[in-house]
Order: sequence, then C-alpha cells, then structure tokens
Amino acid sequence: MTTEFELIARIAELFGAPEGVAVGIGDDGAVLDPGRFDLVTMDTMVEGVHFKRDWSSPQDVGWKLLASNLSDIAAMGGGPGAFFLSMALPADLDPQWPEGVLEGIKDAARALVPESFEVSAGGGDLSATHGPIVLTMTLMGEASPAGPVLRRGAVPGDRIVLLGQTGLAAAGVSILSGEVEVEAGQFAEALRAHRRPGAQVRAGALLGLYGVPSAMIDVSDGLVQDLGHILKASEVGARLEAYSLPHHPELVLLREEHGVDILKLMLTGGDDYELLMTIPPARMPKIWDMARRHSWDVHDIGEVRSPDEGMVVLGPDGEPVTFAQGGYRHFEAR
Amino acid sequence: MTTEFELIARIAELFGAPEGVAVGIGDDGAVLDPGRFDLVTMDTMVEGVHFKRDWSSPQDVGWKLLASNLSDIAAMGGGPGAFFLSMALPADLDPQWPEGVLEGIKDAARALVPESFEVSAGGGDLSATHGPIVLTMTLMGEASPAGPVLRRGAVPGDRIVLLGQTGLAAAGVSILSGEVEVEAGQFAEALRAHRRPGAQVRAGALLGLYGVPSAMIDVSDGLVQDLGHILKASEVGARLEAYSLPHHPELVLLREEHGVDILKLMLTGGDDYELLMTIPPARMPKIWDMARRHSWDVHDIGEVRSPDEGMVVLGPDGEPVTFAQGGYRHFEAR
Repeated sequence: MTTEFELIARIAELFGAPEGVAVGIGDDGAVLDPGRFDLVTMDTMVEGVHFKRDWSSPQDVGWKLLASNLSDIAAMGGGPGAFFLSMALPADLDPQWPEGVLEGIKDAARALVPESFEVSAGGGDLSATHGPIVLTMTLMGEASPAGPVLRRGAVPGDRIVLLGQTGLAAAGVSILSGEVEVEAGQFAEALRAHRRPGAQVRAGALLGLYGVPSAMIDVSDGLVQDLGHILKASEVGARLEAYSLPHHPELVLLREEHGVDILKLMLTGGDDYELLMTIPPARMPKIWDMARRHSWDVHDIGEVRSPDEGMVVLGPDGEPVTFAQGGYRHFEAR
Repeated sequence: MTTEFELIARIAELFGAPEGVAVGIGDDGAVLDPGRFDLVTMDTMVEGVHFKRDWSSPQDVGWKLLASNLSDIAAMGGGPGAFFLSMALPADLDPQWPEGVLEGIKDAARALVPESFEVSAGGGDLSATHGPIVLTMTLMGEASPAGPVLRRGAVPGDRIVLLGQTGLAAAGVSILSGEVEVEAGQFAEALRAHRRPGAQVRAGALLGLYGVPSAMIDVSDGLVQDLGHILKASEVGARLEAYSLPHHPELVLLREEHGVDILKLMLTGGDDYELLMTIPPARMPKIWDMARRHSWDVHDIGEVRSPDEGMVVLGPDGEPVTFAQGGYRHFEAR
C-alpha cells in the first residue's frame, strides 16, 4: 500500500509551491492567502457509480475529478485555485493507482486551465476503505470582479445559450457498457468525452468578467435537468428548441449506423461539463462577438418564458416532445 | 431512498441562513463572504474503518465528523465557519440515516462551538455507492488576528503541554470491540469519547488569539505520533514525561479491574481530539493563568529538546519506554 508519506511527496512534486496557499499540506489544515478565494465547490466520484477501473485509467479518473470541479467554478463565472483531495482507498489497491489520480489531476490542470489561473494542492485526507474507491475534491476559486454568476438571474425573454455540445459523454458510456457495439478504434471522441471531459474554464471566467449571462450552470446532470435547475432557481419557464442543438459527427454516426436515439443522449446524457446560460437579448451580440474572437462553439437553443409555461422542449420537427425527465439521478448507479 | 431535495431541505432547516456564506446550497458552488475564511481542513470517515453502524448512531457519526474538523481548526488557533459535506450512501440505506448525520452535526455545533463562532452549511455533494458509507467534510475557518498556529514553531526548551486527556476514545473502542468485557452501563465516558468526542474549539481560538503556543496540533493519530508530527515539522527532539499524563478514573478502573495497558492507550490511542502544544517557558505562566480562568484541564508533559535527541518517552518510573510507534495508521482499519 502506498503510504501517506509517498503520496504527499508525489503531490508536492507535481504541484510545487501552491499559489494562493500560504501553508499547504503538512499541518492540521491549510492557510489560504487572505481574501484570495471566495468560491467553493465539492464533487465526489465513487467507483462503480461514476467510474469503473476497467473503463478508465487512474489518470482519467483524476482528470475527470478536477474537470468536474473546474466546470462548477467556470459556471459561476470565476477562476479556479486551490484544491483539497480526499481519497478512500482499498488496502489491496495497487499503489500506482492513487499516484495515477494525482498525475491525471495535473494533466487536467495543464490542459484545461489557462495561464491566468493556477490550480494548486492545498491539502486533503487519505483513508482506508473496505469498499469501492471514493474520491472527493473541494476546489476553491475566485469570483470575477463583476461578482459570481448564479443560477437565479434568468428572466423571461432571455435567450438560452449552450457553449459546447451535449450527449457525447453519454454516448461513450453506452459504448463502454456494450449497449452499443462498435468496432475498435471508432468513436474516439465519445470515449474521451466520458474519460477525459473538458471544462470551459477560460470561457466561464471571461463570461463572468464581462457580465454576459444572466444565469449560468454547467451541464453535468443532463441538458434538460440542468436547464430545470436554472428555471427553478430563477422561477421562470423555458422553451428549449432541441432542433437547434449541435449534432456531433460521432453522434450522427451512432444514429445512422446503430439506430441510437441521440436526441435523448443530447437532452439527458449528463457529464458533458459544458456551459448552459441565459443571456438578455441586448447582450447577445456580445456572446457572438466573443464566440468569433475565441472560436467558441456557441448555440442559441431557446428562450426563457414566464413561469406558468413550465419547460417545453421542441423536437426536431418543431413539435413538443415528452420524455421521462428522470429527476435527480445522484442516487442511481450510472 | 432519501432524495437530494429532502436532505437539502433538512440542511436548510437545521442550519438556516449560513453565516459567512453569501450564496450557499443550491448553485454550482458556494460564494463565501470576501476575506472571511482563510483556514481549510478536510476529514473523511469511512464505515467499517472510522465507525461502525452498530457501535454509533448516525447522530454520533455526524457529531464526530464535525468534531474532528473543528479540532483541526482549533489546533491552528482559529475559529470554525462554513462546512461542506459529501456523503456517499448505499441505495438501500434507511433515509433516516443521512438525516441523522445532519442532526449530529447540528448537535455538535451547538455543544462544541461557542457563540462567538457559527458553523454553517455551505454546500456539498450526494452520491450513491455500492459499498460502505463514506462521509467527507471540508471545514473553513478564520485564523486569529495573530495568525495561524502551525506545527513548525517548536524550539528546544519549550514545554510540551496537553490540554485534555488521551486514551479514553481508544478505551471505548476496546470495550465496543469486545476486547475488554465490561458490564452494561460501565465506562460511559469512554464510550462517549469514541462516539461523541469533544473538540477544544474555544481553547484553540483563545490560545491562537493570545499567541501562547509556539506550535500546536490536535491529538487524532495518538499522542506520541502527533507529537512526532510537531517534532518533524519543527526539526526538534523531545522528552515526553509519560508519568505526567492525566489518568482518567475510567482508565484507572480498566487497568485495575481488567489489566488493560492504559499507558499504551494514552500514548498511542488516537481520536482524542485534544490539543497538544509547545510553549516557551516565558509564556507558561500565561497558560496556567488561562487554565485557572477557564477551568481547562492542562498538563505539562515534557520538554522540547535538540533534534539529535530524537523522541524519548519516560515511563511511570522515569525510565525510557519503547513501544511500536505504529507509523501512519490511516491505511489500517481502526
């Protein structure tokens, strides 16, 4: 078994002198630079629920754990800072495994976090477990000077805008689970979307800085469900124009060659870690301008309506579609 | 299964408007009051490792989770603030169980946190698991205006001071495990020390405020091991006078009636959540004065020495004792 000492040495090696942290690993707790961080997110990944060891490498799991937390901070229009990591590890686990998680966190920090921010290790906890691996990350961040972007600012008339694409990670799961049988080497992007999702770190921080969205959330539970969170917090309704959703080429292929209901994946898939926001019509030119400038993949996919209209999803033919909305999925095995 | 909705409603009911948190549960993350918190601790409790459901009620478990985090903040000479809670819960768990955890956290906050601080719920995460319950808490706190008390300030000549008593929680475990057979109703304080430990919240904050200790840690791994952490961080040695350790009446009874090696419990027991500190001789009158004023249970138990002396533990007869020091115990089932 890896000792706590060895893992702490590895963290120090990978993350060096932590930016924003005056005292890091090695005391009862961490001491943060005063006034530096005002955003906090916490995400847990459980083996057999959020990941499987035969589907993902430890590096993949570490990457995804950071990405999911980065995505939460991005959805508040802020930038990421120090993370705290708890690992509950079985006694017979290969010592390379938790080291791989740390490497994956570092990989994701390098790949997903722009230079204007630094993700550093502030501390954490290591425990034994007699069950599946459980990883919990708490990530601290900084709100933009314009203040955090919340879920509760949407008003009727705002446009609903998606930055990125949905459904690909869920497609990856349907392939890995064998639900859809494909040839080896196919659907590399869907598999990657499950194993090593992106996070819109730079976009989130810029959108927060320029005060573009009236409300924002990251797409982690699934597009419809996450839009529902905005509607509930903002006490509004919405018309989601599903015909405006982007169709990733691999999704199109899945539909054409394997008959997969990709609309369902795009609307309810989950784990996309893209940004869903509402934007007042007067600020729409700003998002198009930013999209051009930064080569963002932006889609206008609907309108915020009055609360009594609820949520209406218009399908590919423009007619309302109904589907099991699923409710909160946190207690179901994915 | 308890839904996330029901648990969030229960948190809101128990913890109300969170002090120090501008936006709490219900967004992608929490927004803290700017500049409020600069200390962070994280502690995990795994079913079957840190607690057993037939030894402890969910209220006990919630209590202990907060107490262990409170103790870390106290050991930095600061005061507690907002907590973040992740719970990984089996699908077949009685929905009362996680609610009980929240109630236990609230009970501990009421019992252990003085009015000058407020422990509030900032957010968290709920997950399913196919294994044992895993709870992780991140607790934010405020360093005193005098700055945090670290592990690394001890210098040769400082006295080693224990606030509280050690060994009782470990005695509780030896009773609950059946290792020591006692009559029903006996050893109530040992059982309570395991199930509902205290935390020196007020003492830690006052010691930090008045700058009394040169180094401080909470006794969670066991007295000798935690003293070792101070020595390592401060690059010093120590002479621990075990004959000066307080003997709780229940420990004395365990030795007299059951032949238990209580010195071992007191030196290596763990989970005591008391404060161990080093104090320069010139400031010793201050701690005695504070002890009198606040009725603290303070014990002068040794001296910081030069690093080449290592750690010497003097037993009841004044002769050095040797024992398996145990190393890091986080990967052993307790």
